[in-house]
Amino acid sequence: MKTNKQNLQAFEELYRPQIDQVLVDYLNSLKSNASLKKAMLYSVLAGGKRIRPILMLAVLASLRDSINKSEIEVAASLELIHTYSLIHDDLPEMDNDDLRRGKPTNHKVFGQALAVLAGDGLLTSAFEWLSQVKIDNQIKIELLHELAYAAGPQGMVNGQVGDILGEKQQLTLAQLQEVHRGKTGALLRYACKAGALMGAADDKISELLCLYGENFGLAFQIYDDILDVVSTEKEMGKAVHKDTSENKNTYPELLGLNKAYSKLEQTILAAKKNLADLEAEGIKTDLLLELLDYFEIKEPR
Amino acid sequence: MKTNKQNLQAFEELYRPQIDQVLVDYLNSLKSNASLKKAMLYSVLAGGKRIRPILMLAVLASLRDSINKSEIEVAASLELIHTYSLIHDDLPEMDNDDLRRGKPTNHKVFGQALAVLAGDGLLTSAFEWLSQVKIDNQIKIELLHELAYAAGPQGMVNGQVGDILGEKQQLTLAQLQEVHRGKTGALLRYACKAGALMGAADDKISELLCLYGENFGLAFQIYDDILDVVSTEKEMGKAVHKDTSENKNTYPELLGLNKAYSKLEQTILAAKKNLADLEAEGIKTDLLLELLDYFEIKEPR
Repeated sequence: MKTNKQNLQAFEELYRPQIDQVLVDYLNSLKSNASLKKAMLYSVLAGGKRIRPILMLAVLASLRDSINKSEIEVAASLELIHTYSLIHDDLPEMDNDDLRRGKPTNHKVFGQALAVLAGDGLLTSAFEWLSQVKIDNQIKIELLHELAYAAGPQGMVNGQVGDILGEKQQLTLAQLQEVHRGKTGALLRYACKAGALMGAADDKISELLCLYGENFGLAFQIYDDILDVVSTEKEMGKAVHKDTSENKNTYPELLGLNKAYSKLEQTILAAKKNLADLEAEGIKTDLLLELLDYFEIKEPR
Repeated sequence: MKTNKQNLQAFEELYRPQIDQVLVDYLNSLKSNASLKKAMLYSVLAGGKRIRPILMLAVLASLRDSINKSEIEVAASLELIHTYSLIHDDLPEMDNDDLRRGKPTNHKVFGQALAVLAGDGLLTSAFEWLSQVKIDNQIKIELLHELAYAAGPQGMVNGQVGDILGEKQQLTLAQLQEVHRGKTGALLRYACKAGALMGAADDKISELLCLYGENFGLAFQIYDDILDVVSTEKEMGKAVHKDTSENKNTYPELLGLNKAYSKLEQTILAAKKNLADLEAEGIKTDLLLELLDYFEIKEPR
């Protein structure tokens, strides 16, 4: 596994603007009420890092050299699902957050009713967009199915329910991981699955890529939980230390901060093991390896 | 156009239990948190008349004699979308309704957070289900696209936004119709479009069926608006006279009750004209004609 720290940066600089462009073009093409369009665009363009689409395209790039516009659209449609989930999560009846990525949350700007509807609109749009992307029909149906599975009541929605109901009780580590497998893991796993489908990976490669995606998702959540403890609102662009005050179940709460760090390290190692297995199958894993740098904690322990 | 008043009743008695059965089987098959599943099932089984699935199957029955289980599943998946829209519409930040079909609304029973998530779950499930129904791939993709289009920010969600923003102003008749084309019309039109797609209708027949669906949708809304004025909470199973108290834009508010009745009659006549045109093309329209009896106002004027 060679690593080249310039590699991911160049990849992101190439594709992130293209992801943003197809997102804006798609949303602007909709014949919707101006207020609804504004509310949807507000959150889609609120400064997300496009981690999920970039992960999907990095998986695809690990399988072949070229990426076309339709594949960028498939990646971008996942960002619509992610954005809807943030809008609904931030609602007063859910996490009640006023700040997201340093900006007022959707309902603070547009009101609760429009925020619910902007979320519903983005969620539905993801399927509308994906259903008309120019790719092979069989792959398209599998993508539609995998996306709905990952986002729905057996995936992200289920995790969100577990998270909210869990506030009333102390979860075990196994229960916490199950919640997170849905809440953050499902979409990140889907990103890898979708890349594998578009890249025509065989079953073994696809399975390894999905395992990497699951570990990526778990690391993502532990990292996020740790940052909530160790960083400031300014750094995060959203309220911090909320998990403790709201009795959220998190890794630092459950394990203590040091063991949460260890769990993060173990999870990153597990992801690296998945990449070594992929490398042994002849897959280029440099971008996927670099993506794990995302989980570096900058603060001294 | 022959009519046989026994026809639709027999059709509904045959298919409504099958629609209910596949809905229950599908939702029970989900690996979801028990509370989430309960919240979704509660609203799906709260006594809906299954008008949208019945309309879809009636269109299909107008094109050929047999209907298989997969087609019943396609029809039932539309009911998931309809149910989600009711749950979200009833939320305090939206229409703030406590009663629906004579029962407490979802958020009154399960709380607002779970109601938002049950809605999100049902919406996403519709696509998950539809993507794995055993039908021709090309038709499946068209169904997925038409459903997402009808339900999303160019269809139902757009109409809902127009309805909520419209509360603050007096709409013109044209604006009101545009709102309703989204709010109630889009899913009813989709029901007809989906029936036409599964029944392999040619473009001309499909277009006529969609026009019928649009008129059906418009009649549905005018009828609902009139009932809100003339009926009691007991008859309706939900709060009535809310439209006036909340400055909702409705046909009776805009035109007066008598002209609203006339508009309903005109719309039903337009739908009958669509059926006459279909009949001239050799399509059996008896069930679709009988479905228009739904809009009979039982109260003396």
